Amino acid sequence: MENQIFQLQYAIDTFYFLVCGALVMWMAAGFSMLEAGLVRAKNTTEILTKNVALFSISCIMYLVCGYAIMYDGSFFLSGIQGGETLVADALAASAEEGFEGGSVYSDASDFFFQVVFVATAMSIVSGAVAERMKLWAFLAFAVVMTGFIYPMEGSWTWNGADVFGMYNLGDLGFSDFAGSGIVHMAGAAAALAGVILLGARKGKYGKNGEIHAITGANLPLATLGTFILWMGWFGFNGGSVLKLGDIANANSVAMVFLNTNAAAAGGLVAALIVARILFGKADLTMALNGALAGLVAITAEPSTPSALGATIIGAVGGIIVVFSIITLDKIKIDDPVGAISVHGVVGLFGLLVVPLTNDGSTFVGQIVGALTIFIWVFVCSLIVWSIIKVIIGLRVSEEEEYEGVDLAECGMEAYPEFTSSK
Amino acid sequence: MENQIFQLQYAIDTFYFLVCGALVMWMAAGFSMLEAGLVRAKNTTEILTKNVALFSISCIMYLVCGYAIMYDGSFFLSGIQGGETLVADALAASAEEGFEGGSVYSDASDFFFQVVFVATAMSIVSGAVAERMKLWAFLAFAVVMTGFIYPMEGSWTWNGADVFGMYNLGDLGFSDFAGSGIVHMAGAAAALAGVILLGARKGKYGKNGEIHAITGANLPLATLGTFILWMGWFGFNGGSVLKLGDIANANSVAMVFLNTNAAAAGGLVAALIVARILFGKADLTMALNGALAGLVAITAEPSTPSALGATIIGAVGGIIVVFSIITLDKIKIDDPVGAISVHGVVGLFGLLVVPLTNDGSTFVGQIVGALTIFIWVFVCSLIVWSIIKVIIGLRVSEEEEYEGVDLAECGMEAYPEFTSSK
Amino acid sequence: MENQIFQLQYAIDTFYFLVCGALVMWMAAGFSMLEAGLVRAKNTTEILTKNVALFSISCIMYLVCGYAIMYDGSFFLSGIQGGETLVADALAASAEEGFEGGSVYSDASDFFFQVVFVATAMSIVSGAVAERMKLWAFLAFAVVMTGFIYPMEGSWTWNGADVFGMYNLGDLGFSDFAGSGIVHMAGAAAALAGVILLGARKGKYGKNGEIHAITGANLPLATLGTFILWMGWFGFNGGSVLKLGDIANANSVAMVFLNTNAAAAGGLVAALIVARILFGKADLTMALNGALAGLVAITAEPSTPSALGATIIGAVGGIIVVFSIITLDKIKIDDPVGAISVHGVVGLFGLLVVPLTNDGSTFVGQIVGALTIFIWVFVCSLIVWSIIKVIIGLRVSEEEEYEGVDLAECGMEAYPEFTSSK
Repeated sequence: MENQIFQLQYAIDTFYFLVCGALVMWMAAGFSMLEAGLVRAKNTTEILTKNVALFSISCIMYLVCGYAIMYDGSFFLSGIQGGETLVADALAASAEEGFEGGSVYSDASDFFFQVVFVATAMSIVSGAVAERMKLWAFLAFAVVMTGFIYPMEGSWTWNGADVFGMYNLGDLGFSDFAGSGIVHMAGAAAALAGVILLGARKGKYGKNGEIHAITGANLPLATLGTFILWMGWFGFNGGSVLKLGDIANANSVAMVFLNTNAAAAGGLVAALIVARILFGKADLTMALNGALAGLVAITAEPSTPSALGATIIGAVGGIIVVFSIITLDKIKIDDPVGAISVHGVVGLFGLLVVPLTNDGSTFVGQIVGALTIFIWVFVCSLIVWSIIKVIIGLRVSEEEEYEGVDLAECGMEAYPEFTSSK
Repeated sequence: MENQIFQLQYAIDTFYFLVCGALVMWMAAGFSMLEAGLVRAKNTTEILTKNVALFSISCIMYLVCGYAIMYDGSFFLSGIQGGETLVADALAASAEEGFEGGSVYSDASDFFFQVVFVATAMSIVSGAVAERMKLWAFLAFAVVMTGFIYPMEGSWTWNGADVFGMYNLGDLGFSDFAGSGIVHMAGAAAALAGVILLGARKGKYGKNGEIHAITGANLPLATLGTFILWMGWFGFNGGSVLKLGDIANANSVAMVFLNTNAAAAGGLVAALIVARILFGKADLTMALNGALAGLVAITAEPSTPSALGATIIGAVGGIIVVFSIITLDKIKIDDPVGAISVHGVVGLFGLLVVPLTNDGSTFVGQIVGALTIFIWVFVCSLIVWSIIKVIIGLRVSEEEEYEGVDLAECGMEAYPEFTSSK
Repeated sequence: MENQIFQLQYAIDTFYFLVCGALVMWMAAGFSMLEAGLVRAKNTTEILTKNVALFSISCIMYLVCGYAIMYDGSFFLSGIQGGETLVADALAASAEEGFEGGSVYSDASDFFFQVVFVATAMSIVSGAVAERMKLWAFLAFAVVMTGFIYPMEGSWTWNGADVFGMYNLGDLGFSDFAGSGIVHMAGAAAALAGVILLGARKGKYGKNGEIHAITGANLPLATLGTFILWMGWFGFNGGSVLKLGDIANANSVAMVFLNTNAAAAGGLVAALIVARILFGKADLTMALNGALAGLVAITAEPSTPSALGATIIGAVGGIIVVFSIITLDKIKIDDPVGAISVHGVVGLFGLLVVPLTNDGSTFVGQIVGALTIFIWVFVCSLIVWSIIKVIIGLRVSEEEEYEGVDLAECGMEAYPEFTSSK
């Protein structure tokens, strides 16, 4: 009967992982809709193509080598083992770990949950480089990012490996629950490298330093994308508890859901109010970015703050993101959807605020960890983007950019009957 | 081992709550898309802003005071307790209640599930007052509605408190399983009060009593919103069983899922046919409202009817909603999305039909309960809307309404490249 | 305590079914958005109406007679039994089957899961006959398809009944895990019959054999639809394991989720590359169809391939779909969304590839099964479409087609402010 209880716990923990993984996969749709809503109509087909392709590439690259690099497994490439063996293995593992011991669940469910995280990191990049980067250059970068750059820093953090044999982030007190740094800031670092090499969109910045707002073509789509991300984030953070099947872990998962929601709410309201004060209007895109900022901010530690604490952390994230977006525009880092601010700047904030509620982390650890991730991803990305630039070029031609990358890259408009901009 | 079984049950019941809560949260996206699809393009950014903001405000207000008012808890404001204590408490509670006793699950999961209901009630309001109400007036109302008005009537119904110490709705045989009255009719009552004070949109009703149809700008969006609500409703009703982890409750949850789906299907087909007979066309918006009406109708009692019974209850809801929308238009209550009909009129119908299948409820109880909820919410809302009207005004200027509230309130158009209405 | 463990397992298995069922229901939204995005603006309201109505009709017809035909049950029409009896029945069944025996879960959850499959089969039809078929003719067909044609072939496959008392597909080694053939190819067969009788859209094929591309009006919507289908497919395939609550089944469910995702990724990348080679552009609609083709291809057997194997199966599906779409256009079978290629041609491929990884199936069995399903559905559909054609006609008038079926059938445009095509 003990055996049956273990089996049930195994089944529950596996199912919990799968449900959370499906929610994170759903975030890919969220990024697609968010980005498609915030670019101009003439660049919409291409950003959609980038998003669906990057998700698929992530899945393939992480399967082929990423997961092995990150967790040193060779399981998937050699095919799945027979069912009998797996059950015996699982029961043995359960017996060893004990009921409230470590997590025991299907390896496939672990891979499924992990793979959707890779795609999230890569999704962040596509928004920042939108409306001017060549599609195939972007996809080439996606191959390297998801197959190598992300898995390397993932192995140092979530797998506990030493950073090039030099130091260990966990030993230094680095803690990043669901990936404010490992996923979000990493994605933003890759994006920043790309944006620097790529330059701003034509017409974004005037000769005398003036900044021209380029409004998105479809705000309901951007709002939908935000809601999808908000919902998917329950899986992103909630699944990162890694186990559900006893009281302590179930409480933790519940608290994470609650805090994730609270932080998003706090971020949205704060950004809405700050934008109202600064611009005199209820700025929807700032509000949406505020919600996302709240979500990014709480991601580094959603299990220890109180719900009110989470609301406040989210709200501070929402305030930061407004000023960050304004600041990046001033220094002419052109990020059409605000991804670098939302995921990078607020991701860093999320890391730094962890020690306030989590005793197991230290400020030194958080700073060293943040620097390690940022430098690794930024430098690698700069190199990879540069190589791609030399070989196939990063940027579409001026004429293609003017006409819209949709026709140049995809040969079809996203809204052929709605716009007369052709 | 008994301990381990309790722990598993606790984990399952908590996870079930969280999954259902995530689905209800998703309904916020449904309302946003539905309403954004049914208003004109020039008012779309503002309705989106209202929707994302009201969801966030609901989460914050319910955390700060709503939950405490409704359930007399002081848990969340004082921060979450340490994990050890919670596990001990939960085990003690489990032992006391027994395996098939009351529900034992994470407090955080309970809050998470409850908070998304508040937002649903408030979402109903935004559609009815669309295209003419000031954004900040609406948000001010949201603060009071979600922090006070809804929690008060919630405490009389789902928490079993006496109504101002006078009478007890439960004792009178009032039963509202998932909130046809408590959530939906309550939202509609608040909306009705607002619409009466606000008046109709310019151009909706002609001088000689003629009614001008104002068509929505984006019907795929409205359809998507309906599908999202339909899906989210599985969580809304399914989670309201409050427990999953034994055979009787699992059967109940399954029946609720099945009946919720059946009622929506019945409502849609009935409304489609009735509209075909009345107007000679397959009216998509009526069909969508029919599905929602079916969902609202079954919400008061989705566990006791047979699946065929649920289909019929939904179908009657779908018929009612068509005539209600026509009637409200005749008496010049201008509700751009039909929210008062869907949630108010059909919500009342849902309450009244409960005693047909649920022996534990009485017609007297349902009527007294419906009146109590309606009067409380309507009168409070009238007062609050009136105060807001005096202080900041409810309605945008005539010119702003003509130009669209998007530019006036949010400073940005939802579809800047698709419309030349500016 | 044994009793309590069975109860927990029952609850888990039921909940797993309900979650998967909700995901499959969500696919209805996916088909709606995909099809609405791929037709022209003037036919959008009508395709949305068809989609919401066919889902509802499926639910009603399967309740009224389809489930009884398929599984010989009379349960639902006679209403649900009392809770006490059900619990006793379930416990007795649990005790009989044993912990790792057959599946024991709520009948209502089984119906809920099954009913959303019927709707999927029917959804496939609506895309192929889009932009020219009469709405009520389509809905009349839906009644017969979901109430009779699908349940009959379903009874031969998933219920193991003999085909007209002649032969048994299971005995011949036919295996179709989640319905590449039973659901997808069946839907495509019904669609093909309709398309043949209906003819191509006006202007699709020129007098000299030239093919005119008719581009969809809203590609973000089509992309969203694809993501929704991708997500929903986790429930479609994952739920088809039919049981979660022990280690072997949990492993199987996890592998199915993983393989489903891998196949979609493989299909998308393969179709994107093939289209790039053939057309010189990154063709978004081909990429989306590639993802769907990958999903259809893996559906016949998602539990036995390795993740890499699933990626390859999906990729081959993605390659096939591109050539199939091109070929069907050459022989003037006009399928606006590519449904016959995605679900029919690739569905057949999915069936044929099963014996490579599943020892329990045979090529002969797969071929006989595929032929049985195809002939049954195609011939029945031809007859039913023909009868409908005689009675009310299948096709709108030439003028209605030119003006768009939205105004003729639904009396309202989907995007009244965005298009000036009226």
